Amino acid sequence: MTNNQLTEKGQLRHFLTIEGLNRPLLTEIMDRAEQFSSISGRQVKKVPLLRGKTIMNLFFENSTRTRTTFELAAKRLSADVMNLNITTSATSKGESLLDTLHNLQAMHTDMFVVRHAQSGAAEFIAQHVAPHVSVINAGDGCHAHPTQAMLDMFTIRRHKQHFPDLRVAIVGDILHSRVARSQIHALSTLGVGEIRVIAPKTLLPSNTQTLGVHVYHDMKTGLQDVDVIIMLRLQFERMQGALLPSENEYFHSFGLDQQKLNYAKPDAIVMHPGPINRGVEISSDVADGDQSVILEQVTHGIAIRMAVMSMVLGSRSEQQESVE
Amino acid sequence: MTNNQLTEKGQLRHFLTIEGLNRPLLTEIMDRAEQFSSISGRQVKKVPLLRGKTIMNLFFENSTRTRTTFELAAKRLSADVMNLNITTSATSKGESLLDTLHNLQAMHTDMFVVRHAQSGAAEFIAQHVAPHVSVINAGDGCHAHPTQAMLDMFTIRRHKQHFPDLRVAIVGDILHSRVARSQIHALSTLGVGEIRVIAPKTLLPSNTQTLGVHVYHDMKTGLQDVDVIIMLRLQFERMQGALLPSENEYFHSFGLDQQKLNYAKPDAIVMHPGPINRGVEISSDVADGDQSVILEQVTHGIAIRMAVMSMVLGSRSEQQESVE
Amino acid sequence: MTNNQLTEKGQLRHFLTIEGLNRPLLTEIMDRAEQFSSISGRQVKKVPLLRGKTIMNLFFENSTRTRTTFELAAKRLSADVMNLNITTSATSKGESLLDTLHNLQAMHTDMFVVRHAQSGAAEFIAQHVAPHVSVINAGDGCHAHPTQAMLDMFTIRRHKQHFPDLRVAIVGDILHSRVARSQIHALSTLGVGEIRVIAPKTLLPSNTQTLGVHVYHDMKTGLQDVDVIIMLRLQFERMQGALLPSENEYFHSFGLDQQKLNYAKPDAIVMHPGPINRGVEISSDVADGDQSVILEQVTHGIAIRMAVMSMVLGSRSEQQESVE
Repeated sequence: MTNNQLTEKGQLRHFLTIEGLNRPLLTEIMDRAEQFSSISGRQVKKVPLLRGKTIMNLFFENSTRTRTTFELAAKRLSADVMNLNITTSATSKGESLLDTLHNLQAMHTDMFVVRHAQSGAAEFIAQHVAPHVSVINAGDGCHAHPTQAMLDMFTIRRHKQHFPDLRVAIVGDILHSRVARSQIHALSTLGVGEIRVIAPKTLLPSNTQTLGVHVYHDMKTGLQDVDVIIMLRLQFERMQGALLPSENEYFHSFGLDQQKLNYAKPDAIVMHPGPINRGVEISSDVADGDQSVILEQVTHGIAIRMAVMSMVLGSRSEQQESVE
Repeated sequence: MTNNQLTEKGQLRHFLTIEGLNRPLLTEIMDRAEQFSSISGRQVKKVPLLRGKTIMNLFFENSTRTRTTFELAAKRLSADVMNLNITTSATSKGESLLDTLHNLQAMHTDMFVVRHAQSGAAEFIAQHVAPHVSVINAGDGCHAHPTQAMLDMFTIRRHKQHFPDLRVAIVGDILHSRVARSQIHALSTLGVGEIRVIAPKTLLPSNTQTLGVHVYHDMKTGLQDVDVIIMLRLQFERMQGALLPSENEYFHSFGLDQQKLNYAKPDAIVMHPGPINRGVEISSDVADGDQSVILEQVTHGIAIRMAVMSMVLGSRSEQQESVE
Repeated sequence: MTNNQLTEKGQLRHFLTIEGLNRPLLTEIMDRAEQFSSISGRQVKKVPLLRGKTIMNLFFENSTRTRTTFELAAKRLSADVMNLNITTSATSKGESLLDTLHNLQAMHTDMFVVRHAQSGAAEFIAQHVAPHVSVINAGDGCHAHPTQAMLDMFTIRRHKQHFPDLRVAIVGDILHSRVARSQIHALSTLGVGEIRVIAPKTLLPSNTQTLGVHVYHDMKTGLQDVDVIIMLRLQFERMQGALLPSENEYFHSFGLDQQKLNYAKPDAIVMHPGPINRGVEISSDVADGDQSVILEQVTHGIAIRMAVMSMVLGSRSEQQESVE
């Protein structure tokens, strides 16, 4: 299932999940993002790499922030971008999802960026598109959010260089987090020395052993000697039925404040996929403090999305221009 | 009334209705679309023909699909496109439609693409715009949908070449269909041998004789020896008060399934403007079958809209660049 | 407070309010708009001045018309524009306004165009953005609407040349009008001979003396020998609690009809920021008459916004290309 995102030559054809991708490929994504990063600081932040390509943002689940980063990335690659809020569109006339997709791809679309509340949606769409169309998963249910994971890896690499030497802790609602799932796959593929998850039992998945992570239920021992702390967002909307303490209790046990941060290494970096709930997962002084790289993550999100978009479309045309 | 869409030299100034346009003009639209079709298959699907032009999509009636095709066509011509959902805009501040229009054209707009639930709306707007503004009708009430008709003609020509030799049947709710009205005008202007409409009496207009069509009330005789079958969408929203059988009964009598398709010529093509109601107007095996050209119609819709947009704006500037 | 919109060298860094800007700067804006005006009449209405720049329209208060003019201005400068309807966006996930802003600017955004229902919002945002980001106020509460004021000045200059010789009357709801406030500052900075406001007492601010305007409560004396009449829009939504006569009474006393227009100079021009309420502030024959320059204002709005956008971004890069 996870291999249909690669061409026969092992190049990215879709970008659906981190699972099944190897270390050289993840490294290539980051190396390419490094090139695009330098572009973003220029007077003219645009390259003509995807000029004339048509990219459609299919957001079945609303997310202004993520849509904006994909739209910006596409525009900086000079592609034409269309935003389609599918919930309010043709499907409201009774058309099936597949009919809508087939119609949109018949317009010589090159790429769908898909956000959907159901796990597996991007995969399903990738299985049904024509050979000339690529699909990028911009988050599907509790399953995966691979561009988020890659921008996190890129941010870690910028600060910490060598993955095998690192101890990384992911804190919060692991159970419902597509971000955590993709991060864990990326961290282990990149050979991170030790991956820890810190969460109450009710917010942990049952397969932590297969995931190869070390489980902690308190911050004090979990953050000990850690190089990277990744805080997750409390996804109230996805936690129906989960036994959750009050926000105050949660913050007391698992929220990151300066005191708990002191358990980690002195040069540990603090990450969060955003948007942050101040005073719930993280205190304001830590979110805005010296060790926080939260806004850097946003910046790197553009470069990573430019990298993935250009690789995915590049895999089907050997005529691709180079980033000068 | 229908001639104000032409300049004194007989070139397209607006594109409001097929009525009153002659065969050479319709042929020119298709010939030009043929050129744009080849562009859509290229690595770079863009031409600089309308660079610096401003096109405003004025959608008074929501239609993501049609808006998307016009927006894509405009972008592939390198125009700047603005989408204005008029229902939620200035008119909600109590401004009149004409004031809104005059304001928008004062911004040096070159073209309005108009979709409106009322018949005659595009015509009305064309009568009130300044000389430098063109209007394209993207569907007005039960009146006309000329770009849809032209993409249908283009699709027929791609498969069947010589119009006079053809027998074409249009099936369904002729009475409320702007698509059917525009198709009938286009087919007769192009000299199609025989135009048939197949519909229950309650879904037929009273002027079928003036339209020059042959009327059938059953599929068996109506589809006999036909080269092209155009299925219409059941427009539930436009059929208030019409006596309509249940969906099941309708499909039994007028829905296209494989058995009824066999009445037509073996190489007959099946068309539908979309979105399709599977199992109501058309069965899934026919919609997805070998004789269906439904998705080709979508593809050709972009080329036809590029053709019309470039002709309409070209008619007012002799400095137009050629499609290399 | 008003000086943080200038760089140390006195160039525009933000554009938040007319207050505190000097005559040479306002003149420079108009001179530059004059150049852009000539571009709008060309076949290709685009210049590459802001190519590769990212401009975000942050509309906390809906205004299709104003957003459209900013979007068009940005596109004609070749910038990439993103429209963000903030009310329906990340803030709905509980994120604070400042967090949203910091995220958006982390995407290498160059400019925020801000429309907000609260006075001081654009100023507040300007105080919190990074050094590489400019803010343009597209209207904040009852406070300021500086691009509107400048397009009005530009329109006056086009018709009347020498400001010191002019008598200008602003008529209507001065109290709640950000437009009036910005106009008064601009008119006095440009040295207009006499600025009059004509309004019922309930619609006048208390500080008319500090503003340096002459107050009239009737049209007959107020319009006497005036060169320019600026009608304001009745902002019903902003007049909660204000003692207002009925629309009919208002029109009778303060609405501009042909008879009242005759009190002014025979070559007086009539202006209105739009959208107009016909028969409330202004009669249709005057709005559409020879002396009305209302639609010219709309046209000039694009040029003024292009001027301000290019100056503001030019102030931070000396590498700016010139308008050929």
